[in-house]
Amino acid sequence: MPSINRCLPALRRIRMANQTFQQSAQLRAVQRVSQVRWQHAEATTTASNAENHPPESRSGVPSKKQIKFTSESYPQLKRDSRFKELTVDDVKFFKDVLGSDNAIIDGVSQDATSELEAFRADWMRKFRGQTKLVLKPGSTEEVSKILKYCNDNKIAVNPQGGNTGLVGGSVPVFDEIVINLGRMNKIRDFDDVSGILVADAGTILEVADNHLAEHGHIFPLDLAAKGTCQIGGNVATNAGGLRLLRYGSLHGNVLGIEAVLPDGTIVNDLGKLRKNNTGYDLKQLFIGGEGTIGIITAVSILCPQRSPAVNVAYFGLSSYEKVQEAFKEAKKSLQEILSAFELMDGNSQKIMTRASGHKLPLENEYPFYCLIETSGSNEEHDSEKISAFLEHVMGEGIVEDGVLAENETQAANLWACREGVSEASQHFGGVYKYDVSIPLPELYQLVADCRQRFIDNGMMDTEDESKPVLDVIGYGHMGDSNLHLNVCTRWYDKEVEQALEPWVFEWIQKREGSISAEHGLGLTKKEYIGYSRNQTMIDLMKQIKNLYDPNGIMNPYKYI
Amino acid sequence: MPSINRCLPALRRIRMANQTFQQSAQLRAVQRVSQVRWQHAEATTTASNAENHPPESRSGVPSKKQIKFTSESYPQLKRDSRFKELTVDDVKFFKDVLGSDNAIIDGVSQDATSELEAFRADWMRKFRGQTKLVLKPGSTEEVSKILKYCNDNKIAVNPQGGNTGLVGGSVPVFDEIVINLGRMNKIRDFDDVSGILVADAGTILEVADNHLAEHGHIFPLDLAAKGTCQIGGNVATNAGGLRLLRYGSLHGNVLGIEAVLPDGTIVNDLGKLRKNNTGYDLKQLFIGGEGTIGIITAVSILCPQRSPAVNVAYFGLSSYEKVQEAFKEAKKSLQEILSAFELMDGNSQKIMTRASGHKLPLENEYPFYCLIETSGSNEEHDSEKISAFLEHVMGEGIVEDGVLAENETQAANLWACREGVSEASQHFGGVYKYDVSIPLPELYQLVADCRQRFIDNGMMDTEDESKPVLDVIGYGHMGDSNLHLNVCTRWYDKEVEQALEPWVFEWIQKREGSISAEHGLGLTKKEYIGYSRNQTMIDLMKQIKNLYDPNGIMNPYKYI
Repeated sequence: MPSINRCLPALRRIRMANQTFQQSAQLRAVQRVSQVRWQHAEATTTASNAENHPPESRSGVPSKKQIKFTSESYPQLKRDSRFKELTVDDVKFFKDVLGSDNAIIDGVSQDATSELEAFRADWMRKFRGQTKLVLKPGSTEEVSKILKYCNDNKIAVNPQGGNTGLVGGSVPVFDEIVINLGRMNKIRDFDDVSGILVADAGTILEVADNHLAEHGHIFPLDLAAKGTCQIGGNVATNAGGLRLLRYGSLHGNVLGIEAVLPDGTIVNDLGKLRKNNTGYDLKQLFIGGEGTIGIITAVSILCPQRSPAVNVAYFGLSSYEKVQEAFKEAKKSLQEILSAFELMDGNSQKIMTRASGHKLPLENEYPFYCLIETSGSNEEHDSEKISAFLEHVMGEGIVEDGVLAENETQAANLWACREGVSEASQHFGGVYKYDVSIPLPELYQLVADCRQRFIDNGMMDTEDESKPVLDVIGYGHMGDSNLHLNVCTRWYDKEVEQALEPWVFEWIQKREGSISAEHGLGLTKKEYIGYSRNQTMIDLMKQIKNLYDPNGIMNPYKYI
Repeated sequence: MPSINRCLPALRRIRMANQTFQQSAQLRAVQRVSQVRWQHAEATTTASNAENHPPESRSGVPSKKQIKFTSESYPQLKRDSRFKELTVDDVKFFKDVLGSDNAIIDGVSQDATSELEAFRADWMRKFRGQTKLVLKPGSTEEVSKILKYCNDNKIAVNPQGGNTGLVGGSVPVFDEIVINLGRMNKIRDFDDVSGILVADAGTILEVADNHLAEHGHIFPLDLAAKGTCQIGGNVATNAGGLRLLRYGSLHGNVLGIEAVLPDGTIVNDLGKLRKNNTGYDLKQLFIGGEGTIGIITAVSILCPQRSPAVNVAYFGLSSYEKVQEAFKEAKKSLQEILSAFELMDGNSQKIMTRASGHKLPLENEYPFYCLIETSGSNEEHDSEKISAFLEHVMGEGIVEDGVLAENETQAANLWACREGVSEASQHFGGVYKYDVSIPLPELYQLVADCRQRFIDNGMMDTEDESKPVLDVIGYGHMGDSNLHLNVCTRWYDKEVEQALEPWVFEWIQKREGSISAEHGLGLTKKEYIGYSRNQTMIDLMKQIKNLYDPNGIMNPYKYI
């Protein structure tokens, strides 16, 4: 254990590394990775189904290369014959309710067909439904009329927000009508004393956050997709993101919901109260309900004060035990200002430099790296706290080396080391991604075991181009016990898939983890819920689904 | 607006007031109010049904003066004839499952009858059921066997934690069997890296918090009843308390629940994960479900780091507008360290001094007082922040005068000015209490309007002993928009009651507030849910109740 005397030169090393930062182009290049991510998604065949991020606008949806229909990729799925096929009369009804401009009908024109494509295919180009109709309601009453008609006529529907989901939940599978909330995008109310925002479900997350910024507040959720995703979709999928460690989950922050049930009933539970103990908290069922029991049309949410002081540090560690110690120390000494604690293993950083050709912020290589962010009200106090923390963890030998950003550009560059991993991991061909939650002590063991599995079966080599697997990497939101396991491949390979599934799910099940920490079930995880939930829970969930949606018209073929 | 120069003398006044604090006995006397509260409850006839606090141990339940049966106080309630009356065979079954020691049967002995009384009457001496049997299961499996038997035989049950509720929810009305969770009191697990605690439902809140304190953590909930109340009961009633402003509600902090459904099904949803997006979050229905759809047997909860630095300040303000400004400023400049922002109106402080005979911390009188508490990791930083805040609000004329506690005793004395109000308000005869939530801008108007109502109808005078109403006061958790409206009376008076109800509920309904912010519905608020929830919501809640408890055996006559 190094003495406290060793700590001071170590801290100077942090500062020195920091000073050379601005001259170095290494991280700015890394940052560029995220700017080219949409091109990647277009050009690469990938088995990716997890953490990627959509482009800023929907106009990026490519049409030149046709995406396979979901029904072809998942041949075991069959259209449910209970659902009515759309007729001319149905379309007339919807046009009468919404006006012609707000119903996009396939085949009416080249433009319509092309526009429709953006709503029935997902941004990862992995899922594509066969819907012939997209509806864009402008009010809760319109949503109610549409749903009532669909329920009465057993027409299946697919509620849709920003269509930035990662598990195929936001696009239709067969001919379900898409009900897109994008037109319902008004901020209804914000009270800067209580910090409570009420907004339509179709409000873009970034628009809501910008509005809050003008009033010194912040949305208690941050996602890479924030320029596209909608807050209704965020709530419907119980999105986690970067601020969960600090501000907690949507189950705590959402104060009220307005939603429409399949039978057209408008549920007005849009309270603006932090405390209201008058009966079952039914809105919670819609949070993370993935549009299977109703459509959220508006949200009331508690928004914290925006912090003027933000600090970001990046450091290298020798083992996962040290990572856990560092996390414990950060919680203890940074406590109220800690806003992110992210983990990246050495291999994740290597593959990122390999994909981008640039170096990492630290001189030497380490098996683990962490990024911490603090947000607080007083710059001086926060700097003192973070310096004291770094002195302590380096003095005690918990952390080997580190850098502390001195300005916003440097902070963004350090974040790019974490955020660039997702794209870099699919740079060499394909990637199998798992978004899981595992109790902290065993969190990283999954990556180690998975890596060993591919070494043992001879399918992995970082250099040998004849092997399908290039590397197995791990990174994620350490503060939330949320790991992203990525198996980076040179090509899509059935044998790799067979080596992974159900092995990964069984591994997680044994540790009482979650097979979907923040991305939800959608279409891709539906079959695997049994690995994270026991049969009693699944039966109780089905009971709720049947209670609210007895005809099963809401987002069918997905969830449970 | 006073210039910044005026601010310095004002701040000196704070310090001076502070320095004379230790020599003065005034606040220590106030603190004593809370120590004699149980004697009050014994000696006083009161219509109180809201914020009071139980004694530290159940041994204080008095037996000398018989409490009226609830069925006599609420003659409109009739026993539901669907429920089976207990037979000798039923009792034999329960004794076989639990052992004789864990079934208390009325009439078996003088001791048994006397012991049973403590479980069927509430600590406020307002509610008393006619149960003949109390069961004390020692395991989840035992709870399951009991409930299955009761459900099969249509025997009504009353789940019970620490029996510290304020709305008659925790004691039986007629002959429902009491199932008390007190024997299930093990802390199952605590991980000090993630801060996740798993404990039996019967664990006393203070025991859990003391366990956490040993590991540098804190339970994210604090209540005056913490020495008696149980965490299962806290979760079942979605308790709010003092730390909600800082740590958020139980809907966000509870990560998992183990519960038993009426039919004996054990719901194992006791996850230890911050993120788990695999299906409907059903545990949320049990949070605040008040034991009407199942019995919570264990809880998994996220516990934050304990803050070493705590500061408390108390100040006077000239209007409710200034109170709102001060709150806004506190949120802005104290942000991450703000842990309480409490409001007390001038009349609440007057009645407290009148009841105790002692003076308040500030020299002059003000129409409003606030108490703020900060909790953080660094004493020096926090002191700087709170001093800067006080300098600012006094310099800007938002706050008129204030004191800042310099040690724990002073802090406790300041807290007593807030916590002593509840008891003082019933010191002169009776009190009508309302625990409500109203959007912040109109929060205090209810008190002003209510006071004016009693002045106008000639029923109130602070000095004239012939008037029933002595005063109308308001105080509460400003940070949570949670107001306690107390109408302090010289005697219990039907006309006062008629002037209050449904007027108070209608007033709240117009502002879309809640008629029960943190105390729940229980028996007393059941009839009034319509003032806070629309018919659609009530119908949907009844649907859930019928789904989980088709025989209606769980905590009948209450909730919805």
